[in-house]
Amino acid sequence: MTHKVAILGASGYTGAELIRLIAGHPNIEIKALAAERKAGMEMAQVFPHLRHMKLPTLCKIGEIDFSEIDLCFCALPHKTSQEVISALPSDLKIVDLSADFRLRDPAEYEKWYGNPHSAVEIQKEAVYGLSEFYREEIKSAHLVAGTGCNAATGQFALRPLISGGLIDLDDIILDLKCAVSGAGRALKENLLHAELSEGYNAYAVGGTHRHLGEFDQEFSALAGRPVKVQFTPHLVPANRGILATVYVKGDAQAIHQALATAYAAEPFLEVLPFGEAPSTHHVRGSNFCHVGVAQDRIEGRAIVIAALDNLTKGSSGQALQNANLMLGEEETAGLMMAPLFP
Amino acid sequence: MTHKVAILGASGYTGAELIRLIAGHPNIEIKALAAERKAGMEMAQVFPHLRHMKLPTLCKIGEIDFSEIDLCFCALPHKTSQEVISALPSDLKIVDLSADFRLRDPAEYEKWYGNPHSAVEIQKEAVYGLSEFYREEIKSAHLVAGTGCNAATGQFALRPLISGGLIDLDDIILDLKCAVSGAGRALKENLLHAELSEGYNAYAVGGTHRHLGEFDQEFSALAGRPVKVQFTPHLVPANRGILATVYVKGDAQAIHQALATAYAAEPFLEVLPFGEAPSTHHVRGSNFCHVGVAQDRIEGRAIVIAALDNLTKGSSGQALQNANLMLGEEETAGLMMAPLFP
Amino acid sequence: MTHKVAILGASGYTGAELIRLIAGHPNIEIKALAAERKAGMEMAQVFPHLRHMKLPTLCKIGEIDFSEIDLCFCALPHKTSQEVISALPSDLKIVDLSADFRLRDPAEYEKWYGNPHSAVEIQKEAVYGLSEFYREEIKSAHLVAGTGCNAATGQFALRPLISGGLIDLDDIILDLKCAVSGAGRALKENLLHAELSEGYNAYAVGGTHRHLGEFDQEFSALAGRPVKVQFTPHLVPANRGILATVYVKGDAQAIHQALATAYAAEPFLEVLPFGEAPSTHHVRGSNFCHVGVAQDRIEGRAIVIAALDNLTKGSSGQALQNANLMLGEEETAGLMMAPLFP
Amino acid sequence: MTHKVAILGASGYTGAELIRLIAGHPNIEIKALAAERKAGMEMAQVFPHLRHMKLPTLCKIGEIDFSEIDLCFCALPHKTSQEVISALPSDLKIVDLSADFRLRDPAEYEKWYGNPHSAVEIQKEAVYGLSEFYREEIKSAHLVAGTGCNAATGQFALRPLISGGLIDLDDIILDLKCAVSGAGRALKENLLHAELSEGYNAYAVGGTHRHLGEFDQEFSALAGRPVKVQFTPHLVPANRGILATVYVKGDAQAIHQALATAYAAEPFLEVLPFGEAPSTHHVRGSNFCHVGVAQDRIEGRAIVIAALDNLTKGSSGQALQNANLMLGEEETAGLMMAPLFP
Repeated sequence: MTHKVAILGASGYTGAELIRLIAGHPNIEIKALAAERKAGMEMAQVFPHLRHMKLPTLCKIGEIDFSEIDLCFCALPHKTSQEVISALPSDLKIVDLSADFRLRDPAEYEKWYGNPHSAVEIQKEAVYGLSEFYREEIKSAHLVAGTGCNAATGQFALRPLISGGLIDLDDIILDLKCAVSGAGRALKENLLHAELSEGYNAYAVGGTHRHLGEFDQEFSALAGRPVKVQFTPHLVPANRGILATVYVKGDAQAIHQALATAYAAEPFLEVLPFGEAPSTHHVRGSNFCHVGVAQDRIEGRAIVIAALDNLTKGSSGQALQNANLMLGEEETAGLMMAPLFP
Repeated sequence: MTHKVAILGASGYTGAELIRLIAGHPNIEIKALAAERKAGMEMAQVFPHLRHMKLPTLCKIGEIDFSEIDLCFCALPHKTSQEVISALPSDLKIVDLSADFRLRDPAEYEKWYGNPHSAVEIQKEAVYGLSEFYREEIKSAHLVAGTGCNAATGQFALRPLISGGLIDLDDIILDLKCAVSGAGRALKENLLHAELSEGYNAYAVGGTHRHLGEFDQEFSALAGRPVKVQFTPHLVPANRGILATVYVKGDAQAIHQALATAYAAEPFLEVLPFGEAPSTHHVRGSNFCHVGVAQDRIEGRAIVIAALDNLTKGSSGQALQNANLMLGEEETAGLMMAPLFP
Repeated sequence: MTHKVAILGASGYTGAELIRLIAGHPNIEIKALAAERKAGMEMAQVFPHLRHMKLPTLCKIGEIDFSEIDLCFCALPHKTSQEVISALPSDLKIVDLSADFRLRDPAEYEKWYGNPHSAVEIQKEAVYGLSEFYREEIKSAHLVAGTGCNAATGQFALRPLISGGLIDLDDIILDLKCAVSGAGRALKENLLHAELSEGYNAYAVGGTHRHLGEFDQEFSALAGRPVKVQFTPHLVPANRGILATVYVKGDAQAIHQALATAYAAEPFLEVLPFGEAPSTHHVRGSNFCHVGVAQDRIEGRAIVIAALDNLTKGSSGQALQNANLMLGEEETAGLMMAPLFP
Repeated sequence: MTHKVAILGASGYTGAELIRLIAGHPNIEIKALAAERKAGMEMAQVFPHLRHMKLPTLCKIGEIDFSEIDLCFCALPHKTSQEVISALPSDLKIVDLSADFRLRDPAEYEKWYGNPHSAVEIQKEAVYGLSEFYREEIKSAHLVAGTGCNAATGQFALRPLISGGLIDLDDIILDLKCAVSGAGRALKENLLHAELSEGYNAYAVGGTHRHLGEFDQEFSALAGRPVKVQFTPHLVPANRGILATVYVKGDAQAIHQALATAYAAEPFLEVLPFGEAPSTHHVRGSNFCHVGVAQDRIEGRAIVIAALDNLTKGSSGQALQNANLMLGEEETAGLMMAPLFP
């Protein structure tokens, strides 16, 4: 059986990535592609790498007949997303890639995103979209809120350690190295090749990055008490990839064991042999996440490192994985392509 | 029905790329992976991006039981390849990715590669592996000789123009811009990141690049008279991609029409609207080749530009396409993945 | 004696490059920096790499007291430049880095730039700023029009061959590979890291690039008859550098000899041994231009390759070299720094 | 007065960088360049970017007449360096860029570098070459041991905080992001463009990087008690630059104040306004180090970030700075060039 989907926000990187992935899915057909400002254009003009595909002409959201859509991917900016989703049919399955439905507490949403939430009732139904940890809820969900890409990476490194009580909850430092596509196709000076290539820097220093809201929510829930982590992202000159280097206090061997056990049956999570460090090179373009653990020379301290592709496992791949769960498809359908190396 | 294949030379980039592609093929199983110097190692150690796959341990060629192999990919260095293939069972289907069986005239081989050919009899059976132009011969071939990656790119731009008598045969200039993976995983100073990143240069200037042997052979055969082109490759700071900018004398509109007609039914060749220029960005990681034509401001001169991924359409993708033809599979099986962008 | 200069358009890359170079000049003091939209800001905010320098606060052009300025660099967009320069004191020495005064024929200017020239009288006084070939005129000039960066590169490869009557004037092809900083700090989608890194493409195909106006003007004047070249620029993923691969018909040895003779006494032009190819790696950040010549395998055809840094020798370095000539300084003052490698 | 210098190990990146810097020094002349395996070659062959300079032909160390040398830079591999220096005239001023004389305790040297030290007596005379903190000792030193590039970066972030008693000495984490030229011109697979470009990874995880020996020595001496830091380096796809993100427990404002005070009179150290983060983009090719401090959202935690160019301030620039001190030259001579951006 073929499921019919629409993608709202098809002219951004996560939209294009969804199309790339769905192209390899046996049972999903793209029925509509919306991009307000580019309505009327062909995808081949917006993303020439999709030139070979037969795709619907870009349209406005209002032009879509949702009665023939089984599931809708929303790859829209936050704030826009909640407005658009409020107006969609209430029985439509939705995978939202924006930040709008990730935080369960509207006050937290407003604190991190600056605007009051305008769809609080809908938010109550949203399931947090970290597939490996919310699998059952996602299967029956109406609306799944895709996670932040940084938030996903950090959680893959830390969730089993927090739920297992293996680390000091008051001393967790996440130093993230992020590729540039996470910032989207926005025209900003610091995203220009001439400004980014051959150099790197921290940003949002001091704990101001919005994905902290997700860390706080998820880690506190797991621990049953408030957990606040330190999180400093860095922008590095690469197009895809997130590498989270996580500094924790705990027993490195026990940590490695906990991760290996937690992910033993997971198709997309690979725990490396003890002491090995993953690389974003080895997950690029794929839905895999590689996790490594090392013992520091200082007793009782461990380093956990997780690597994934922000556009795939961190965003559109995760979205398709969740859609598979919601549609009753194989969870891995369309997602088992190997990384592109070199 | 599942076909069983072996890959000889699995520790190089073209070997790894074959594995990546075959992972998405419905009817091919990898039965053996050989790499002489790394025999005994797991692929996950040699190419960690393939860590998630269940693959045979690397072995020596002599350890393979070829009676259970339907087709063998040889991704070995030239000269080694002819020696190894001479010793393989004579009824084994072989796709060779090296330069050893591309040139039909052993004297030409020796001229360009410096050593006498040691398997002249086998060479007589070899079919030149440019799938789109040797399709029927490949279907019934025992041994297919994969083309040079630069040679493939130039031919996609030029063959229909030469066979159509549309251009001046004495004034063809190919200016190629090549990414670094074409040089393989060799440890050479000029391939280091510090030496290559942020700069670019011509190499093999003056018509000394070995792929000229293929151009001479193929273009002369098409034209029915000797054709010698100018060909200057450049090394640019990127990992995948070849862009051929070809300067010809002829009518640009007729040239565009000839290419559009020649490739109308081809699944992997996309001819762009007249005047548009392709980009290697838009074919990366895929088996597609984009071709564009523009009219120069000088009457009677045209520019033809072809872009492909050297490791895919220029090498391992082409090899799998040929294997599909030889095995009676759909020609596109395992090869329709969209390019990775960004 | 210290010369006092102003830089108009200090918030762009060529403005910043001028400051970098003047920092190493023994006898030039920066007295004013203008940038209309960023007036009031410190350079450290606009270009943090200049943080260590004591520089004037950015101001509006109207705020500058030109009576205390000996020479003014205009690093403004074309069209704006002619308007601004029309309003400057008529006795002020000016080095213009824009395209506005390069073309002596206003009709040619309008043809390539789309707008009628609004300062035709001033244009008559302008000297074309290719230092090595207009040295004497520049010394006594009031207004020097810096060349296009591509135009400079192509001319270094070709002028001695055209003036020496060494090549076929009807068959000259320039295939240029350009780094991204030549496009300036503009916010355009194709200049984003995610869009440019790891790929490359031709642009302005078919002879539509504006620098053709300069080639036409200069080569025709040299030859004493109309000369039209083919010129196709390519955008490659690097920040600095232009590599011109020039295909000509003529005797390669004579060509090499002519270039070696022409540039024997030039401090910034290095002619490589016959057969060697230059690289943009080896001129980055410097005012040097490397030129190489090779004989093609086809008799009577030669390849001339020139490499320079578009922001230095192609723009701001050239501007300072011209300012040195105009001010009676050593031509090389502030310009002998070695390239940055790696 | 012109000082005559020799550079031993002139065929590596630090050797070439020394030549680049000395080219801009008013009072230093390069009298000899040694490179054992490339003796007899011209520098233009080994480093074509230095083609324009008149430089001595590469020779063997044994061919140098040290009686006419005032100061010798040793840019040799560790272990080789101590052997070579043992055989040099005892009154020759030496700046060593290797690791051989950095660690005062021979047991520590052997622990980190694996071989016993063979020049223990000479080591006793060596002064640790962090110019800003050993200035007086360096002025009168016979042998100065250049610091590790990572070690320098971390110390610029931390020394004033440790000596000022401002941070918890038992909880210091250095997460470093290092460009590839720090690994030298060695032919290693992970340094190839195809392996490094577009991805990044941690290495030497778990506190195994050799520069920890320097951190231990210097921080413990400053604190008057053993101090052990956590240090995880990462390899990022860039050619120059080190960014140290340092996580400490202490008052961020006090930390910022201490750094601002400590570096107020330093010509090469720039402390950014509170809350701003430095970037390696803004120090490339220069001898500057930018330092920033931010307050984490968690009370009592601060992030200190330092950025420098590993080949300049981290190695050859530091070496020239030290040579200036030893020779009685202005400390900044030849070192005030602005960074190259973009």
